[in-house]
Amino acid sequence: MNHINPNVTTEKEKMLRGEYYNAFEKNLLKDRKKAQKLCKRLNNMSDGSYKKRLKILKKLLQTTKDVWIESPFRCDYGYNIIIGDGFYANFGCVILDCNFVKIGNNVQLGPNVQIYTATHPINIKERIAQKEMAYPITISDNVWIGGSCIILPGITIGDNSVIGAGSVVTKNVPNNVVAVGNPCRVIKQI
Amino acid sequence: MNHINPNVTTEKEKMLRGEYYNAFEKNLLKDRKKAQKLCKRLNNMSDGSYKKRLKILKKLLQTTKDVWIESPFRCDYGYNIIIGDGFYANFGCVILDCNFVKIGNNVQLGPNVQIYTATHPINIKERIAQKEMAYPITISDNVWIGGSCIILPGITIGDNSVIGAGSVVTKNVPNNVVAVGNPCRVIKQI
Amino acid sequence: MNHINPNVTTEKEKMLRGEYYNAFEKNLLKDRKKAQKLCKRLNNMSDGSYKKRLKILKKLLQTTKDVWIESPFRCDYGYNIIIGDGFYANFGCVILDCNFVKIGNNVQLGPNVQIYTATHPINIKERIAQKEMAYPITISDNVWIGGSCIILPGITIGDNSVIGAGSVVTKNVPNNVVAVGNPCRVIKQI
Repeated sequence: MNHINPNVTTEKEKMLRGEYYNAFEKNLLKDRKKAQKLCKRLNNMSDGSYKKRLKILKKLLQTTKDVWIESPFRCDYGYNIIIGDGFYANFGCVILDCNFVKIGNNVQLGPNVQIYTATHPINIKERIAQKEMAYPITISDNVWIGGSCIILPGITIGDNSVIGAGSVVTKNVPNNVVAVGNPCRVIKQI
Repeated sequence: MNHINPNVTTEKEKMLRGEYYNAFEKNLLKDRKKAQKLCKRLNNMSDGSYKKRLKILKKLLQTTKDVWIESPFRCDYGYNIIIGDGFYANFGCVILDCNFVKIGNNVQLGPNVQIYTATHPINIKERIAQKEMAYPITISDNVWIGGSCIILPGITIGDNSVIGAGSVVTKNVPNNVVAVGNPCRVIKQI
Repeated sequence: MNHINPNVTTEKEKMLRGEYYNAFEKNLLKDRKKAQKLCKRLNNMSDGSYKKRLKILKKLLQTTKDVWIESPFRCDYGYNIIIGDGFYANFGCVILDCNFVKIGNNVQLGPNVQIYTATHPINIKERIAQKEMAYPITISDNVWIGGSCIILPGITIGDNSVIGAGSVVTKNVPNNVVAVGNPCRVIKQI
């Protein structure tokens, strides 16, 4: 990108560092357009074979095998999503992967789960100037996230934990717990 | 199925009994694929006539007449959904009908209502072995469920009751009440 | 419409006055069908250019320029939605615009935001007679609504305010605040 001046920081670099960036910069727009085309192909073949779907998913996001994502699925870039083995996401999953979304092994998502790395400034001037930022999300091994949960920017969910349907996860969730509600709170150890 | 040994229990039978079952067994996969094809046909004809939509719905689920389901609609099997007269579901309804979903007469669903009979074990070993179970849901006559509500496995909602938008219904709701919130609680009698 | 008797009130007029009306009256059905066709065109071109999308949006709703709505987007009529400059709505926005939805300048909506002007009577007899009513919603300048929020009939959200992801907005929100939760409550001034 920056052949002339290696010190110039791209919008993508700022985005991945959690700094203010311009989401409407032309390279980011191009990347999102590419991801949307792949999502569209995936979503239009809702009755496709496992192999055909995996082929598209491998182009869209960082995954190896044993991954099943039901249609419709939507994400911003795809390339910031890193998925372990044994992943299942039911209908309507949305991942705003403006920063990294790391998903461990054996993770299960109910329908309509929303994973949002993207956020905006509270400050009005900065917000209407369309400044944005994004913080990484980590979903560890063996996690089950119930349907229609929302995972907010910067969150880590620990190994083996279960998030009840309809929860809004605003704080990190430790290993080996069941957590539920809006805001999501730990209700028991596993 | 079990020509040789009538004592063999199929995965579908286990599923409908609320026992652990394997959702990736080949006959269940085939049934879900069939349902997804019908859903896709319904969803792609979002401007179709009432008659054309009803024809698809009759193939997909157990219904007779006077049923309107907006696109997109998604379900797992369809054949476990039993719908009374005068049913209306707005955009984006999701029904995970791994067990029976009985819907009475004159039931109205706002947009994005999520009806989940499916669940997973909390126990980690059983969960990552992809054991699943499902419990039936009953929505009685004259119920109105507000937009984006979530109805959890095993729930019964009583006659005439109203569930406020965005509620997560984790316990049975009696007849003739208004109930709201996450978790959903009765706030008044009708 | 009412060439013969100018005193006859149409269902559309009743709808916009917040009175009981019949949503299945033939002219309203025709209007919704038209809006659904436009939504379908918009949603099927998820990788379309800004200009092409804006062309459809100008036919669908009241807007001028500088408006970006991701696919899928769904609304009832479209013509009751009035959008200011600098509007952005992410994936899966649903607007039930049975009454007016006025959106100011520089408004940002996260994914899956649900704006519902439509409601039904609590009274059982009236409800199952399919009486409906709708109340206008106002989202003022510089508002940011987080993903998967629900805005209920009759609500006004004041200038510059921020609604946290997953909130259910059941009461008006004043200017210059952050509000979150189900039900949505003010947690700080901006």
